[in-house]
Amino acid sequence: MSTQTEEMKSLENLSGKKGVSIMKNLKEVFPDLGDLATKLHKELYERDVLDLKQQEIITLSILIAQGNTESALKFHINAALHAGLTKEEIFEIILHAAPYTGFPRAINAVYSAHEIFVENGLVE
Amino acid sequence: MSTQTEEMKSLENLSGKKGVSIMKNLKEVFPDLGDLATKLHKELYERDVLDLKQQEIITLSILIAQGNTESALKFHINAALHAGLTKEEIFEIILHAAPYTGFPRAINAVYSAHEIFVENGLVE
Amino acid sequence: MSTQTEEMKSLENLSGKKGVSIMKNLKEVFPDLGDLATKLHKELYERDVLDLKQQEIITLSILIAQGNTESALKFHINAALHAGLTKEEIFEIILHAAPYTGFPRAINAVYSAHEIFVENGLVE
Amino acid sequence: MSTQTEEMKSLENLSGKKGVSIMKNLKEVFPDLGDLATKLHKELYERDVLDLKQQEIITLSILIAQGNTESALKFHINAALHAGLTKEEIFEIILHAAPYTGFPRAINAVYSAHEIFVENGLVE
Amino acid sequence: MSTQTEEMKSLENLSGKKGVSIMKNLKEVFPDLGDLATKLHKELYERDVLDLKQQEIITLSILIAQGNTESALKFHINAALHAGLTKEEIFEIILHAAPYTGFPRAINAVYSAHEIFVENGLVE
Amino acid sequence: MSTQTEEMKSLENLSGKKGVSIMKNLKEVFPDLGDLATKLHKELYERDVLDLKQQEIITLSILIAQGNTESALKFHINAALHAGLTKEEIFEIILHAAPYTGFPRAINAVYSAHEIFVENGLVE
Repeated sequence: MSTQTEEMKSLENLSGKKGVSIMKNLKEVFPDLGDLATKLHKELYERDVLDLKQQEIITLSILIAQGNTESALKFHINAALHAGLTKEEIFEIILHAAPYTGFPRAINAVYSAHEIFVENGLVE
Repeated sequence: MSTQTEEMKSLENLSGKKGVSIMKNLKEVFPDLGDLATKLHKELYERDVLDLKQQEIITLSILIAQGNTESALKFHINAALHAGLTKEEIFEIILHAAPYTGFPRAINAVYSAHEIFVENGLVE
Repeated sequence: MSTQTEEMKSLENLSGKKGVSIMKNLKEVFPDLGDLATKLHKELYERDVLDLKQQEIITLSILIAQGNTESALKFHINAALHAGLTKEEIFEIILHAAPYTGFPRAINAVYSAHEIFVENGLVE
Repeated sequence: MSTQTEEMKSLENLSGKKGVSIMKNLKEVFPDLGDLATKLHKELYERDVLDLKQQEIITLSILIAQGNTESALKFHINAALHAGLTKEEIFEIILHAAPYTGFPRAINAVYSAHEIFVENGLVE
Repeated sequence: MSTQTEEMKSLENLSGKKGVSIMKNLKEVFPDLGDLATKLHKELYERDVLDLKQQEIITLSILIAQGNTESALKFHINAALHAGLTKEEIFEIILHAAPYTGFPRAINAVYSAHEIFVENGLVE
Repeated sequence: MSTQTEEMKSLENLSGKKGVSIMKNLKEVFPDLGDLATKLHKELYERDVLDLKQQEIITLSILIAQGNTESALKFHINAALHAGLTKEEIFEIILHAAPYTGFPRAINAVYSAHEIFVENGLVE
């Protein structure tokens, strides 16, 4: 079983410094849930049947579909960029999702993604 | 604008004969919705920013998350196999999805996938 | 406050004999929930700001969007026919809904509606 | 197949200037999704089986049920007023929806509607 | 049938002054929905098969699962504290919910709860 | 970290023999997901902030709200009976849930619960 230190290192490798800071905040507010979340995150994302890009495509697709998960969506748009998905590919995920999730959910996701792209200097 | 014949050919290329027969059935029951669905299907899946495997990963992830879309889920598990995703990769999509969608939705998807794998002779 | 007899009469006026039989069944299985449901049904559907057709359009649209409410959906497709909506109008509600709810939910609804139309002799 | 100009004109007829400005913004952020959305919007709302009021009742009902679609909900409350639905009728849609969507979703919608009614000078 | 005064008194007993002020606001914006909501609230929470703590556990669990019901969630976190549930028990409800609702919904709820705990001086 | 044997014993204590047989079936179909599910189940239900009845109230409430989780719902109605909740209390959970989840979800749950009560000889 992994230690919390290993789990946070795994999180940084997978999701970048932004991911670590968000998870640290959760651990301060409610440690038990933060610990369970980081443990599961490490277990899942270090599996090797799918690559990291594919894993982030899954996660993004689910979050677009669920709605009302704006902060998780932004966390994973950052993580998707960190995994090597491009801005164009992330927008394309949203476009592909639209007829399945309905357009209102997809349009919400466009604006969340746009905000992260601006933060990362990918659009002016 | 594509013709209905082109759209059904595109559907067969992308989703196999099973996909065509499901869509034909929909077109008989309610033609206008069937036509809109095949038109959108062609438009979306023939885009080239993401490859077909990635597109089916998106679609499967959304359907697992939504629940109560068992026939669409089975359609796209077949289409995912047709696109070259393996049984192991499809199960892995469901495992990765579980902590985001909740386990009950994921467990439903396991049994839908298993059923399609049996139908395709992939498990005994 | 209305009596249960008045409420069942109201239900028959609004939803037909089919509606009454479904509600009677619920009342046998769990009377308190059945009573609350018929009371609310009467209160809502006897309001006069919207007409009965508009009320059934609202109810159908919500049920299509939610998914996993197949028996409620069939109850209200029957009630919508009883209120004077045509087969074509009910299918059109589903088509209009599709880009908002996503196509998988809409396609489910098409087959539920088709089943009720067959039961009512509206399609062969 | 319609041109983008025709589609934006259709949007203005159906949803008013507010609708056009929201869609223009989407087209700037992610043109392909904006184009698909306006094309579908024109196709759907120009169909003639249901009238525009009925179409907006469907759309509003779905958005109330889904939740987390506040900007789409406000867009369509504006569009519903533009189509001739009154403030009282829009509130009534929400009341009718409540026992189906659950009260929390309905109460969210009350406040979104109230905000649009204030913006349109319909309540002080 | 209870009067509106009795219903507001019941609401204060069950949910505290905060609950009353939120419901009064709803009644001003849309009286018919506010009246129906307070009537149902009284009917439900004054039943005696489950105690008030159990009732608030049900309500909180549903709101965590649904998402996009932040103001209802905060109302009921306050009501849960009023009913005698502790901060630790409320966080535990969220932790227990996470694998069923998915972690993104649960993490949203953690921050809503934390905000109410701060407002009530339960965490610094 | 617990072994799989300990986890299955924990599952039997918490959910009865029925729970074990359902989980064993899942482990045969997709072992990795079955293992993760039993591990999380043990971790969650053996925590001691809430008692087992409260934990099952949370789980049932979420499953009623989500819909399309009929087999998980039946698993947990059995587990709730095993934990000491009565038939009347389980029905009451559903009644309390109805105005939050909407009545269609609640009515579905009534019939699932009724089926389990019949299986357990609690109603004739």
